[in-house]
Amino acid sequence: MAPFLDRRDLRFQLFEALDTARLPERPRFADHSRETYEDVLKLAYAVAERYFANHVRAADLNEPHVVDGKVVLVPEAKEALRAFRDAGFYAAHHDESLGGLQLPWVVMQAVMAHFQAANIGTAGYAFLTIGNANLQRVFASPEQQRTYMQPLIEGRWTGTMALSEPQAGSGLADITTTATPRADGTYSLRGSKMWISGGEHELAENIVHLVLARIEGGPAGVKGISLFLVPRYRPTPDGRLGEDNHVVLAGLNHKMGYRGTTNTLLNFGEGGETVGELVGEPGQGLAQMFHMMNEARIGVGLGAVMLASAGYQVSLEYARERRQGRRPGVRDPLSPPVPIIEHADVKRLLLRQKAIVEGGLALCLYASSLVDDLETGAPDARPDTALLLDLLTPLVKSWPSRYAQDALSDAIQVMGGAGYTRDYPVEMYYRDNRLNPIHEGTEGIQGNDLLGRKLTQAGGRGLTVLLERIHADLASADGLEAVEGIGTALTTAAGHAREALGTLLGQADALGPERVLANANAALELLGHTVVGWMWLRQATVAASALDLARGDDAAFYRGKLQTARYYAVYELPKVRALAELLASADTTTLEMQAEWF
Amino acid sequence: MAPFLDRRDLRFQLFEALDTARLPERPRFADHSRETYEDVLKLAYAVAERYFANHVRAADLNEPHVVDGKVVLVPEAKEALRAFRDAGFYAAHHDESLGGLQLPWVVMQAVMAHFQAANIGTAGYAFLTIGNANLQRVFASPEQQRTYMQPLIEGRWTGTMALSEPQAGSGLADITTTATPRADGTYSLRGSKMWISGGEHELAENIVHLVLARIEGGPAGVKGISLFLVPRYRPTPDGRLGEDNHVVLAGLNHKMGYRGTTNTLLNFGEGGETVGELVGEPGQGLAQMFHMMNEARIGVGLGAVMLASAGYQVSLEYARERRQGRRPGVRDPLSPPVPIIEHADVKRLLLRQKAIVEGGLALCLYASSLVDDLETGAPDARPDTALLLDLLTPLVKSWPSRYAQDALSDAIQVMGGAGYTRDYPVEMYYRDNRLNPIHEGTEGIQGNDLLGRKLTQAGGRGLTVLLERIHADLASADGLEAVEGIGTALTTAAGHAREALGTLLGQADALGPERVLANANAALELLGHTVVGWMWLRQATVAASALDLARGDDAAFYRGKLQTARYYAVYELPKVRALAELLASADTTTLEMQAEWF
Repeated sequence: MAPFLDRRDLRFQLFEALDTARLPERPRFADHSRETYEDVLKLAYAVAERYFANHVRAADLNEPHVVDGKVVLVPEAKEALRAFRDAGFYAAHHDESLGGLQLPWVVMQAVMAHFQAANIGTAGYAFLTIGNANLQRVFASPEQQRTYMQPLIEGRWTGTMALSEPQAGSGLADITTTATPRADGTYSLRGSKMWISGGEHELAENIVHLVLARIEGGPAGVKGISLFLVPRYRPTPDGRLGEDNHVVLAGLNHKMGYRGTTNTLLNFGEGGETVGELVGEPGQGLAQMFHMMNEARIGVGLGAVMLASAGYQVSLEYARERRQGRRPGVRDPLSPPVPIIEHADVKRLLLRQKAIVEGGLALCLYASSLVDDLETGAPDARPDTALLLDLLTPLVKSWPSRYAQDALSDAIQVMGGAGYTRDYPVEMYYRDNRLNPIHEGTEGIQGNDLLGRKLTQAGGRGLTVLLERIHADLASADGLEAVEGIGTALTTAAGHAREALGTLLGQADALGPERVLANANAALELLGHTVVGWMWLRQATVAASALDLARGDDAAFYRGKLQTARYYAVYELPKVRALAELLASADTTTLEMQAEWF
Repeated sequence: MAPFLDRRDLRFQLFEALDTARLPERPRFADHSRETYEDVLKLAYAVAERYFANHVRAADLNEPHVVDGKVVLVPEAKEALRAFRDAGFYAAHHDESLGGLQLPWVVMQAVMAHFQAANIGTAGYAFLTIGNANLQRVFASPEQQRTYMQPLIEGRWTGTMALSEPQAGSGLADITTTATPRADGTYSLRGSKMWISGGEHELAENIVHLVLARIEGGPAGVKGISLFLVPRYRPTPDGRLGEDNHVVLAGLNHKMGYRGTTNTLLNFGEGGETVGELVGEPGQGLAQMFHMMNEARIGVGLGAVMLASAGYQVSLEYARERRQGRRPGVRDPLSPPVPIIEHADVKRLLLRQKAIVEGGLALCLYASSLVDDLETGAPDARPDTALLLDLLTPLVKSWPSRYAQDALSDAIQVMGGAGYTRDYPVEMYYRDNRLNPIHEGTEGIQGNDLLGRKLTQAGGRGLTVLLERIHADLASADGLEAVEGIGTALTTAAGHAREALGTLLGQADALGPERVLANANAALELLGHTVVGWMWLRQATVAASALDLARGDDAAFYRGKLQTARYYAVYELPKVRALAELLASADTTTLEMQAEWF
């Protein structure tokens, strides 16, 4: 069976393309070494293979359903999360004082990548739980952390985030769930939350929801939104589980894919009181939630990459084994058919997958390394690092989500009819990944975030930092003959991106926000494709330098990197020009289209 | 509920963009009029709505399965095909002497479009049956036609085509099913056929398979392939059903979508003799089968368009009704949320769908009208018509298949989480359509057919005819201000296409077939996008002329056409340039990639 990820490539990304092996020079990571990290990755692979990959299809075929009021999942899911907990992964990045290993975030993400590749549905519960705890670590009071965060870190409870409502999906300003103050300082919550992943199940002792709600009498719009900790069962002062908190499962959503992660409609305050605790100050809910959301967005990008990675491995193995047809010009019908990997168009489909998977992975891990830099990197660089991470976040969310779908389509295509059947998992990954451009902020939301916020904040400093870093890497690559193609193509693409964004944003006041934002998707596409080109330049540069001394499998690995960078330079980066022209024109086609003309 | 197709647009395509209303001037269609055609379309809509749309989700949820050796489908499928038969659609395009109406092929395809849009899975049986009968009409003997074709035309039997085998999917040269001559002139068949749609079911009295097989002792490769009529039950001389013919169902394929159409593995000659009749001469099997295959390829393109059409209608209705968010710059949180169709990025997603659906439909119907021209058009134009149809066929198959998937992805995206659930049919259409780039010749096959055969046959005359027709339409549009944008963009794109193809094919001998064909996909993409641009120019020209006198809904309809043509000119046609540069460079990236580098 095909592996669910390429372990050689993951180590290349961490230890050759990124400086992960040097993180132990920072005080927080002083107890670590590259060997520590390698051991953690080995453990992750073993747990993911044994406890997650084993039920990925079973979870797809046996959608969560309700029996006697309880959500029933395949039993392997509970065992998987127990194994994840026993391996210590809920706590791994936390302080030693909390029971953690102080693992860098980039290594933690590399760990999580294994579980997303092996079984994204079951991994979803762990992801949400970790994100919930991370938010609490920043914003919750010490007492709240003891009550609601510690059980998450110990893997005894799971967590969710509960933002959307039936009438308010992307439009969070319009949420109506209310929080009424109670005498003891807690709040009574009433309302409905829609699309809540992991909202109800029997996988853990308790579930703690992070809920956006309006304190009664507060201001309208986003200013009136506060954040609450809302458990399924109210904890007693001595830490045991108390009475039911009346968070009622009103329905399960039946999804095309990603079926292992239960997705729910929840009612708060139905049949009894739902009690919640305010996190921090009133009115800060959306800002606080964005701490979890930004982390989740990088997680979504990584999840998309890992689905594409799993599909790529399956189609690659199939292409090596399946024999069909002959090379052009071979006329002898008695000559044996060749493995389809020998056909140029199959190589094209595999190259595109490889370009998307490894370019996307590089991007996600690069962004994760910025999270570490923000916390433990050189202090004077942190403001720029923060702006760069802000700028990259919508790209990390959207580019892999979109292109993983193309990659998985290619995986199906390589396998033909076989890929379209349940005999292989690629059709499932394809269904799974289609969620990624939707949840945690749709493509439209990401485009507006990029063009309306991230590209303009701090006077556009984020883009400047990005372009500086790209040009620094281009300068390092200068003179390396093997990367000339990707270098030239990236220089051109980055130039187009800079000019087009400059032209559009330079006249933003005159054009007005509506006309500027009508072109947000082009900006997202343009910059996403450019940034992944940068990731390919970085990988190619490392590969070109390493190739001299490499032999055997290693040499083939580096040649594959260089050829894939060439693919990206020749097939992908030239697409940027048309997008740049569209963007620079501040096009009005969509804006001027009238609803009644459809 | 949203309609499954836009009837106004279908009439525009047939009677405004195409000359369908003038077909009755041709002798074969002398009994018809536009009113006849309108009546037939009305009947098609009524039957499709009542008998096909009613069980599209039920057929998806209740996959074909075997009970007591019989394939069980949802019961509505049988009723649907009975209604289809009772409406006379199996016979409609055939000669009056065969019980038909001599309906033009373009109108017949417009009829079929209704069933594909309403329920592509159930429509599949009718499609294969009609294609099978059409092949027999050309190649089978009069006696074979009486025995095997007439029951198809009467809708009593269904038909299949059986080409692929487990070890030979795209590589038909390697099929191994054998046909051994029997004393009575018939043949005894042995072997297995894979991916046979409609291969086994209880929907009809009998099934007749068109089977490719090798007569024992014949040459290797495609020259040894012959075509056989193989019934499920052997007909008796008096036309009744005789004994079982030992075509044994060896397995059902479990597909991601398109589930209503049973897809089977069949064994011939298992547990008894399978008897078949040779069609025409030995060794002509592949050439004969291509008669059905070319028709099927246009049918696949049309099916893709109609799935996208159905999805577009659903997402359009949703976008008009769902309220979410405010326009950029509106700061008052108490202002009501707007219907999401007011957001520029949602309009972009709807415009792209509209461009793909209506551009694709125009292309499929244009190609269908060429089928009529070949049979009933001016005789001296027929050689050029044949070359143009040959050239367009791989584009008609592949462009809609690929872009319908993008359109359906957009339909899901417009609807967000709702689109990802089974509460709406768009996720199903998305799964259904993913088959279209695979069956009846993959994208890779289409690319090789286009670049390796259709662009070079008759000295490249096909491309010349295509460009002449494009330029004639550009000349007709000259001076119409409203179509200037699409005209300019098409002129540029067609110029890029001509130059790039000329450059590549001009040095084909020097480059060799392997290097040329390594770029086949770029040629397919390039020419497909250009040809659909031409379809948009044609539609825009009609709309611009009609707009002067139009009022109300009609005026809005024509304005929508013009704005969508503008979308295609601004967003889509500029993509052609990068493809042209790639193609002209006779790129070797894929060719030089080595299997061991992956």
